[in-house]
Amino acid sequence: MLPLALAIIAAATAAPAQTSRPSLLWSAADVESIRNSPGNGPLFTAALQEARARVEQALARPIDVPVPRDAGGYTHERHKQNYIEMQLAGILYAVTKEERYARFIRAMLVQYAGLYPTLGDHPMKSGESAGRLFWQTLNETVWLVHTAQAYDCIHDWLTPADRASFEKNIFRPMTKFFTVDHVREFDRIHNHGTWTVTAVGLAGYAMRDRELVAKALYGTKKNQTGGFLRQMDLLFSPDGYYTEGPYYFRYAIMPFMVFAQAIENNQPELKIFQYRDAILKKAVYSGLQLTNVDGAFFPLNDALKEKSFRSPEVVLAVAIAYQRYGGDPALLSIAQKQGAVALLGAGHTVAADLAGGKAVPFPYASVDLSDGADGAQGGVGILRAGPAHDMLTLAMKYTGHGLSHGHYDKLSILMYDAGNEILQDYGAARFINVESKFGGRYLPETKTWTMQTIAHNTVAVDGQSHYGGMQKVSERFHADRNYFDASDPALQVMSASCSTAYSGVFMERTLALLSDPKNSKPVVLDIFRIDSDAEHQYDLPFYYVGQFLATNVKYAAHVEQQSAFGTGNGYQHLWLEASGIPRSPVNFSWLQGNRYYTVTAAADSGGMAVDFVRIGAHDPDFNLRREGGVILRARGRDRVFASVIEPHGSWDGNAEFSRDAYGQVQSVRVAGAGPEGTVVVIDWKDGRRWTFMAAHGAASGTAGRRVAGDGRTFDWKGNYSLERK
Amino acid sequence: MLPLALAIIAAATAAPAQTSRPSLLWSAADVESIRNSPGNGPLFTAALQEARARVEQALARPIDVPVPRDAGGYTHERHKQNYIEMQLAGILYAVTKEERYARFIRAMLVQYAGLYPTLGDHPMKSGESAGRLFWQTLNETVWLVHTAQAYDCIHDWLTPADRASFEKNIFRPMTKFFTVDHVREFDRIHNHGTWTVTAVGLAGYAMRDRELVAKALYGTKKNQTGGFLRQMDLLFSPDGYYTEGPYYFRYAIMPFMVFAQAIENNQPELKIFQYRDAILKKAVYSGLQLTNVDGAFFPLNDALKEKSFRSPEVVLAVAIAYQRYGGDPALLSIAQKQGAVALLGAGHTVAADLAGGKAVPFPYASVDLSDGADGAQGGVGILRAGPAHDMLTLAMKYTGHGLSHGHYDKLSILMYDAGNEILQDYGAARFINVESKFGGRYLPETKTWTMQTIAHNTVAVDGQSHYGGMQKVSERFHADRNYFDASDPALQVMSASCSTAYSGVFMERTLALLSDPKNSKPVVLDIFRIDSDAEHQYDLPFYYVGQFLATNVKYAAHVEQQSAFGTGNGYQHLWLEASGIPRSPVNFSWLQGNRYYTVTAAADSGGMAVDFVRIGAHDPDFNLRREGGVILRARGRDRVFASVIEPHGSWDGNAEFSRDAYGQVQSVRVAGAGPEGTVVVIDWKDGRRWTFMAAHGAASGTAGRRVAGDGRTFDWKGNYSLERK
Repeated sequence: MLPLALAIIAAATAAPAQTSRPSLLWSAADVESIRNSPGNGPLFTAALQEARARVEQALARPIDVPVPRDAGGYTHERHKQNYIEMQLAGILYAVTKEERYARFIRAMLVQYAGLYPTLGDHPMKSGESAGRLFWQTLNETVWLVHTAQAYDCIHDWLTPADRASFEKNIFRPMTKFFTVDHVREFDRIHNHGTWTVTAVGLAGYAMRDRELVAKALYGTKKNQTGGFLRQMDLLFSPDGYYTEGPYYFRYAIMPFMVFAQAIENNQPELKIFQYRDAILKKAVYSGLQLTNVDGAFFPLNDALKEKSFRSPEVVLAVAIAYQRYGGDPALLSIAQKQGAVALLGAGHTVAADLAGGKAVPFPYASVDLSDGADGAQGGVGILRAGPAHDMLTLAMKYTGHGLSHGHYDKLSILMYDAGNEILQDYGAARFINVESKFGGRYLPETKTWTMQTIAHNTVAVDGQSHYGGMQKVSERFHADRNYFDASDPALQVMSASCSTAYSGVFMERTLALLSDPKNSKPVVLDIFRIDSDAEHQYDLPFYYVGQFLATNVKYAAHVEQQSAFGTGNGYQHLWLEASGIPRSPVNFSWLQGNRYYTVTAAADSGGMAVDFVRIGAHDPDFNLRREGGVILRARGRDRVFASVIEPHGSWDGNAEFSRDAYGQVQSVRVAGAGPEGTVVVIDWKDGRRWTFMAAHGAASGTAGRRVAGDGRTFDWKGNYSLERK
Repeated sequence: MLPLALAIIAAATAAPAQTSRPSLLWSAADVESIRNSPGNGPLFTAALQEARARVEQALARPIDVPVPRDAGGYTHERHKQNYIEMQLAGILYAVTKEERYARFIRAMLVQYAGLYPTLGDHPMKSGESAGRLFWQTLNETVWLVHTAQAYDCIHDWLTPADRASFEKNIFRPMTKFFTVDHVREFDRIHNHGTWTVTAVGLAGYAMRDRELVAKALYGTKKNQTGGFLRQMDLLFSPDGYYTEGPYYFRYAIMPFMVFAQAIENNQPELKIFQYRDAILKKAVYSGLQLTNVDGAFFPLNDALKEKSFRSPEVVLAVAIAYQRYGGDPALLSIAQKQGAVALLGAGHTVAADLAGGKAVPFPYASVDLSDGADGAQGGVGILRAGPAHDMLTLAMKYTGHGLSHGHYDKLSILMYDAGNEILQDYGAARFINVESKFGGRYLPETKTWTMQTIAHNTVAVDGQSHYGGMQKVSERFHADRNYFDASDPALQVMSASCSTAYSGVFMERTLALLSDPKNSKPVVLDIFRIDSDAEHQYDLPFYYVGQFLATNVKYAAHVEQQSAFGTGNGYQHLWLEASGIPRSPVNFSWLQGNRYYTVTAAADSGGMAVDFVRIGAHDPDFNLRREGGVILRARGRDRVFASVIEPHGSWDGNAEFSRDAYGQVQSVRVAGAGPEGTVVVIDWKDGRRWTFMAAHGAASGTAGRRVAGDGRTFDWKGNYSLERK
């Protein structure tokens, strides 16, 4: 990689190109193209009208550039409002050349030029990343990303004296603040770093300062130990998976696409969109695969469930990807669901092509996305079956840790049916921008509950979280893909393992998505195997979403008084509602949307307990959602949980209609478990018997496997085999 | 009323009209009209296609008329399926004259003619209303309502021998079963009674048996002590309010409209749609006013929240009302939201006129609907403000009991903002048709929780429910409207009282919906006054919907262990999450949808406690939703709770936008309380002061009132006065 990097550095330090303005996200050619075909694409017209309406309101109001005071209140929101209005006014000026837009930006920059030099650290700062205009530098970089664009748009209209004042009082001190005072953050490989280099890079291009741009591209040392290219090298896997997971992908993709767009407009010779085998294209597509069919991002790691591909960051990314990667019509269907296009030349093209009827459905598919810059740190597996309007989606997480927002959830799963969550990942505990909720920041329960293993649909051992819940330990490890095979749509299987989450404990999960003409929907077979030399307690939760219906477990319910399920590692946040020691197999069912769901589960010999829990204990500030879960608990050394998750029937309360309210699985059992594999038998109520044979360990090619059990031997070749009778 | 009734009886016993078939819900003229303009109205075309698709499937399957066995399982659903398919096949035969439809109905009736005479009481019967085909007669009457229509449609096609067999083996014994074996239910003034007389009436018309029809119209004694007209006299108030409330209105309106339609087609001289000053028209319109703008019925009394005006019963009622009451274009906009029309001649007209662009918005309004056959048993008051897409809706219930599904909730309120519930009525505990939930019937928690006073947003005294939770007592009383005044859209006020819910305790609630240019949304002022000669405990809950945010109450939270809030009358179903003894005024806020809500509340002198509760204690079968409430508790003799409920700001988690997260009310206090009235002062953070003066008792015209307090006297005339400063 070094030779390429050096070549790029050589190019970057050449004489500045004579790019005409606007020159960051917009090019003069974009402006020209819109002027020539203004009516193309209702979504672009709407974006332009919305911008115009918003800026007209701003023009009618007094300008306010308040002294920063709060972390989510008026001054915070006002500075956000200001940068958005400046950016939009800049675009409107570029497109219309109406001077009142330029005057508005100038008047505001005059205020900032007066205010900024007077500011020290923000009064609500917390930790090392204190900003000046905002409580954290992150917001301040976003301010600069927008304001640099506004400045670029009106640069040629401003007097030299104005330019000198704004650069001296705002852009120079602010870029110095980022590249010197916050050099650690600037060179950090993290979404904050991406925002910071993007801000500095855009300011650099706007001021035609290639030295600043070089720092943004290659780090303060200009040797690519930091900077934008290093972020592109390290933050994505070769498949484009963003290391922090889908939620932060959504956030980080914006500066990546924004800076890349500015680079392309100023230094096309860098071929930034082709960098690392077009890694930004892979990032956008893998990011979209990490949404459910309704657009919701899988809430892996710290994540807010409100976020979907309708987020403005993704709207922008889709437009630029469409422009730079050959105009894939599948992206148009995403734009259609977004119901919006970015206010860019690229957005104009998307809107016009969408209006031209070119959209085709986005190809949601079963995909295996590697994690790690080298692609060797596990990944995320996604199995999908059925048409888009009624698709069953199952995901398993076997990635690395995912930086500071990572969760201790190796081998956790989540499941969707069409637009509904069925088995959920809680996400993070945060009400973004809601000041009464801890200033809109991550709530303490994010660490004490949502990060912990027991908050996930995976096994917690001895009441502890993976890696002892220690980020520094967890970051050194990852889970491993055994294999991922979606070649047969009716029998898709993925398997992963983790030997590092607990000392002396090996965990392996194999998931099959099975379709059959005799079942109305695909079903999931889930085999979770734990091997250990010592005796442990194994807890496997299912956080169902919806209304709990019934179970065959004879349980004792704590109806008069209830207590927290444990004392730490997330257990303290669960109320124990009921417990039972069932006969195997257990089943429990719930209703979500218009469909029924039943889990039928068994452990191998040795029995298990079942605990019915509710999130919300030790929550004095009412920060957690009161949602339910069922926890299977087994003790022993080597144990296997085998479960079938079955969507079935339908229910319509308005039309008073119900069909197939009971699952069709008669029983599930572990029929054989040996060193070479595990065999699970599913008996159906209609007399069918399915025998699923799963090989242990990494992908085995076609090696023969043999397991004894059930008074016979099971023989198969390769990773797995399914016998349907 | 008697002379009219006698006149009707005279008309009814005249010689049968020579009506050609079909003659129940369809007339020969309807058929003719559809044949002449088949393409009119996509919604009708869709209804016809759906019917055709469903019946084609039925024709391709073997007929199954199983021996009844279950109360919500296969045989139950199959008999439902059968009657729907027969009815649809009848319509298709009438419209197309294709004999295969008639043959299908005949073949099924042959099976029923074989089965029905062999049946005794249903094996899953419960209580006195045991059916034969179904576990309760109610479903059986619905079966007959549908099957009589199918029979009528193919009557002329059948051989005399078939007709004789079906009448002898099905229709005669079944109508005898209803009019003789279940005479009590037949003559009962209740929705079961309406279904029963409708079933018998339709069978009577189908068999051209005017004696049977007369019983259906005037009761088994044919003197209008029972029967359809008596139901029309007693089950609706003069305003059209259905005594059981909106949910059962939805259910009952179907047999009312169905039978009325059949009467009109067979005995137009009865002028049934004009009966009692067109009571059925008033019923339809008042029923629609009892929905939120998104179509959801106010869940008063036993009610399932899934139900909206999209329910098939209301689709049918809207079509017939459109046909019989002059084609009100406002009904077309309801049909548009329903997205469906009834498969009737009337539905054809609705679809055609909708396609013709004639729809106008339904006029949701502030309305006061009286309860009781005489209109003198209180009622429901609904205040509305704002445009339909952002309407604030506040309802107070001051009705009579409402039969067996009534709740003990005098003066309870509920509130909606646009399509969202903000302060909820829990509705009923029932998962309709979900067999694993108690066979889909009302769950025990309907009686132990949802009916009880503490489950509602009204005052419970000494931990007891209104009228001791005894239906026989409650049925003898009702609350009283003091006044209802929506003449000024910016100052709408309603007031009601109840002196009978507790011995020696008088309760009065006055609600004002206040709009002001300085507030972004209307706010609600809620003054709940209790007078008593003895000391009591008064609990006033607010069952907010959404995410609890914050409160100024310093509370102790029960985070490690929590207990039920009480031992009976619904209190046993609440977990006590936290409690505090606040300084007045208290506030608490929550987030629902994209908006913030804050309640600011004070009691008069004497202080109060605040309890934060969660539904779900004593719920061993997981039947209840885990939703939250805040309960204000005061002790004393005469007490006043004054609260402002304030929608404010907006929040968008996807766009990361928040505005006005804090309410604008600085404080609320009871500034004066005397025998003549109560004065509440609201101070706003921007310095405004509003003084609301509420007269006590019934509407006072312009009488002068005086209350001392705050070191001054407050003087006003009439029911209320608001001073805005």
